[in-house]
Amino acid sequence: MPDAAPAADPLVASLVDGVHAGSRAHVARAITLVESRRPDHRPRARALLTRLAPATGQAVRVGISGIPGAGKSTFIDALGVRLIDRGHRVAVVAVDPSSTRSGGSILGDRTRMAALAANPDAFVRPSPTGRHLGGVARATRESMLVLEAAGFDVMLVETVGVGQSEVAVADMVDTFLLLALARGGDQLQGIKRGILELADVVAVNKADGDHEMEARVSARELAIALRLVSADPDRPPPPVLTCSALNGTGLDDVWTAVRTHRDRSAATGTLAARRAQQQRQWMWSMIDTELREALRRSPSVRAAQGDVDAQVEAGSLSAVEGSERILDVFRTGLVRDGWRG
Amino acid sequence: MPDAAPAADPLVASLVDGVHAGSRAHVARAITLVESRRPDHRPRARALLTRLAPATGQAVRVGISGIPGAGKSTFIDALGVRLIDRGHRVAVVAVDPSSTRSGGSILGDRTRMAALAANPDAFVRPSPTGRHLGGVARATRESMLVLEAAGFDVMLVETVGVGQSEVAVADMVDTFLLLALARGGDQLQGIKRGILELADVVAVNKADGDHEMEARVSARELAIALRLVSADPDRPPPPVLTCSALNGTGLDDVWTAVRTHRDRSAATGTLAARRAQQQRQWMWSMIDTELREALRRSPSVRAAQGDVDAQVEAGSLSAVEGSERILDVFRTGLVRDGWRG
Repeated sequence: MPDAAPAADPLVASLVDGVHAGSRAHVARAITLVESRRPDHRPRARALLTRLAPATGQAVRVGISGIPGAGKSTFIDALGVRLIDRGHRVAVVAVDPSSTRSGGSILGDRTRMAALAANPDAFVRPSPTGRHLGGVARATRESMLVLEAAGFDVMLVETVGVGQSEVAVADMVDTFLLLALARGGDQLQGIKRGILELADVVAVNKADGDHEMEARVSARELAIALRLVSADPDRPPPPVLTCSALNGTGLDDVWTAVRTHRDRSAATGTLAARRAQQQRQWMWSMIDTELREALRRSPSVRAAQGDVDAQVEAGSLSAVEGSERILDVFRTGLVRDGWRG
Repeated sequence: MPDAAPAADPLVASLVDGVHAGSRAHVARAITLVESRRPDHRPRARALLTRLAPATGQAVRVGISGIPGAGKSTFIDALGVRLIDRGHRVAVVAVDPSSTRSGGSILGDRTRMAALAANPDAFVRPSPTGRHLGGVARATRESMLVLEAAGFDVMLVETVGVGQSEVAVADMVDTFLLLALARGGDQLQGIKRGILELADVVAVNKADGDHEMEARVSARELAIALRLVSADPDRPPPPVLTCSALNGTGLDDVWTAVRTHRDRSAATGTLAARRAQQQRQWMWSMIDTELREALRRSPSVRAAQGDVDAQVEAGSLSAVEGSERILDVFRTGLVRDGWRG
């Protein structure tokens, strides 16, 4: 198999015990391990996830998307604190392929969720870095499993409403919540038909002060739009609510709508089916990511890459010939050295 | 190398001669070959492309995107005929991962471009089928090269304005033209910030009859939006024009704007740089597609897949373990049988 870590790997064993005990330090270390792109870390990460698997799957998994400026962090901060007051333990993770950790990234700045980040019953983790969506989504999904094994029972998975990352997040949650804004230019700023189709619940945020009426109007417009874009006629259009993360108004109703959606899908069996399918999708995304990364980290490929890129850019080598050269080099290294290259 | 076809492969040789001679039958056969996903066809396709490469690169490559209903086919039909009247030879290809050939696909229905499809100086090709964007885009790019080698000097690459395919098309053209509509709901129907950022020229179509004023208003609104979303402050926002493919009004201005953009980038050297980078991107997308497809067509993987999927969905095997099993099976087959599996 791809470089299995010995079942008795002491580091893995201590991480498993620490995570099960709910130790924040161990949880952080375990997440760092599953997020790591260092080839020599993956075998341990896989061993860890395999050991933790039985303790996962109990949490309520909610994806939260919205265009920049929709107030996602304020919303998550306010909602998270409320859920903790009700006795939940809340973890916040994110999928943002454009994330750089050095600012700019969603969740990159802890102060954006001040109350939650400081709460002992919450765990806020910035998006893993990486320019390839598949790799980022895989790492986030795996961090989510670590946090579930540590006893967090509500997973809030944040993503920015500007790309394919919404689909990746929808593939790892039970319910997908879309935050919208009471603004005409809204749609142009980024709500996409594809994202509307993913939404199980929609909330128009910032329904406060002068914007309250505006928000109700936007909610009505969105409800109409959602009927228009509905891909599946059998599936009822998602409820559209208004709320104000700032004042806390409407948050309970939004959460109730999220729970109603999840309870209904649990009752009808669609939740179990959705999760089974998500496991398969996760496996295939791990396979594709591993293939992609195995080629890029292959020492033989790294050695040849610069020269091949240059010749292809210069036109002295066709793209076809270049791709064949890289693939041959990869296969040779794979035959000789295995996945770790 | 991955299963090279003998340099002297007679089929490849006859295709090369036929394409250079501009024979439609040979062009069609060559495109069918590069589009084929049959593993035993790829070596021939690669050999063909390598032989044709010197005769490619002279054409004007234009991407044309727009939401469903923007009138892309009518626009391309009308523009193409005008260009042929000016002495050009026009090829139309497409990138639509949702395409199925059996209707529903853009360009799937020739009657949608009746005039052009019937013209001896035009070649209209539907989108290659396939659910993986990388593979579809690669096939379209390769068809484009076949058509250039056959002497077509204008390449119109159509795509639907609803996904990542725009980015793939922008990566294979010199100029990206976005068709918009004079409708308020427009944005909600799918123009995305990311697509606006790709646009080198924008044209509001259907500026005819009652819609003419509406179209001018939309053009002004889009021009404002384009200044707002402009990712690169140094890059001037694209010109926004209005036209009516139905009446033929404004089409010359749109084409002039396209040529102006291309001539300017040719003069500043950005065109050469863009194409060099596109060659490298094409190579890496071929590498990733080939890796992905090699795993999926591997007989050893196919034999194991059903069982692994079922166990992962049932939870008797973790997704991590499942991915390791598939990767091992793939590597074993690769070591034993090479890329063709």
